Amino acid sequence: RSGEMAKLTQFIDNEVFQAYATYATIVLVKMMLMSPITAYFRMTRKAFANPEDTASFGKGDSAKKYLRTDPDVERVRRGHLNDLENIVPFLGIGLLYALSGPDLYTALLHFRIFVGARITHSFAYLIPLPQPSRGLSWAIGYAVTMSMAYKVLKTALYL
Amino acid sequence: RSGEMAKLTQFIDNEVFQAYATYATIVLVKMMLMSPITAYFRMTRKAFANPEDTASFGKGDSAKKYLRTDPDVERVRRGHLNDLENIVPFLGIGLLYALSGPDLYTALLHFRIFVGARITHSFAYLIPLPQPSRGLSWAIGYAVTMSMAYKVLKTALYL
Amino acid sequence: RSGEMAKLTQFIDNEVFQAYATYATIVLVKMMLMSPITAYFRMTRKAFANPEDTASFGKGDSAKKYLRTDPDVERVRRGHLNDLENIVPFLGIGLLYALSGPDLYTALLHFRIFVGARITHSFAYLIPLPQPSRGLSWAIGYAVTMSMAYKVLKTALYL
Repeated sequence: RSGEMAKLTQFIDNEVFQAYATYATIVLVKMMLMSPITAYFRMTRKAFANPEDTASFGKGDSAKKYLRTDPDVERVRRGHLNDLENIVPFLGIGLLYALSGPDLYTALLHFRIFVGARITHSFAYLIPLPQPSRGLSWAIGYAVTMSMAYKVLKTALYL
Repeated sequence: RSGEMAKLTQFIDNEVFQAYATYATIVLVKMMLMSPITAYFRMTRKAFANPEDTASFGKGDSAKKYLRTDPDVERVRRGHLNDLENIVPFLGIGLLYALSGPDLYTALLHFRIFVGARITHSFAYLIPLPQPSRGLSWAIGYAVTMSMAYKVLKTALYL
Repeated sequence: RSGEMAKLTQFIDNEVFQAYATYATIVLVKMMLMSPITAYFRMTRKAFANPEDTASFGKGDSAKKYLRTDPDVERVRRGHLNDLENIVPFLGIGLLYALSGPDLYTALLHFRIFVGARITHSFAYLIPLPQPSRGLSWAIGYAVTMSMAYKVLKTALYL
């Protein structure tokens, strides 16, 4: 058993894999922050989706009026969904890319640009910044993921 | 080739990795169950999103009235999306955590509490249970994932 | 370091893992294509979700009328969300399945059917094809993922 464990930890001793682990974790934690931000806007805007969430505001119509959508809440939710749509491909393709033997410098470049772009995207969505800030940061993250997908398929294509 | 295969299966022979494989699979299967539950409510409530799904109810206005939202359907869909938002970070961070060399007992504790919290969350959402059941089960899963993220970054930080 | 790197690339030298890498990347790239398709329909149908996206159409009411939902945009978005709900389980369970030592032929069968089913699902959703095209392609991908989940739990169950 200690031999097996050694093998698994050797895995994370590889620098490219460490870089993947670091940036994947950072961008996932960033995505997770969208949840408390949604909760913050739901509470300050008093805009909820479930009757049981408004029970503390009283019963009947006095609580029912808080079952509504709010532009600020919907904005955070769109940002969260956009994160899912883009970070899921990064997670999967990025892991395979890290295992495909890229050189450390190139791998770091991909991971850093992706994570920087997604953090920028969140600020552009939440503040919001005028376009094309959000569109551009989305496109950069998208292009980085496509570049990693190309490397994976070039290295490992087995149809 | 048999040597390579041996290496890959050795991977899943590690107990921490086995635990990750088990709990990740269970919580993903749990998430997948939200799809047939949505379909069940769509059919019993006759509330569909696509015109082609209501074709069996006849043509024109007689079918069109089933293109509507229903509170029970929307509730399951919110639960499903909440699963995606929380289980995706668990999948990615949990895998890296399993590779970061935690001891078996601590790893099992993390995986079990996360999966227990998410199963509770689904029941709390679908029944629904009064708050703070749903909020608390969400928060527990969230905290477990953050704890694993901390361990990953402590072990593998490479910026 | 070169020894570690060798170990990681040996990983992707395994044929089952190569097959997983190939099909996971293809189906993730397919999912990513839903984003530009959504953008295409948003622009041709002039239906946007954010005020900052309509700024180029002028100010005030002339731009505000483009903040609306459109059936074609919503259709692509539902297809995209369905992808997330189904491809995320495939990614996680498929990776563990690839590490659980399946024979190459069986693994290829699972990966090919899943990816074929999801590509069919997208066409069925976007054209749209009459039911049960979409329902059936969804069910096939679902069944393949469940079959892999069964193999993972049979191989690695550690509760």
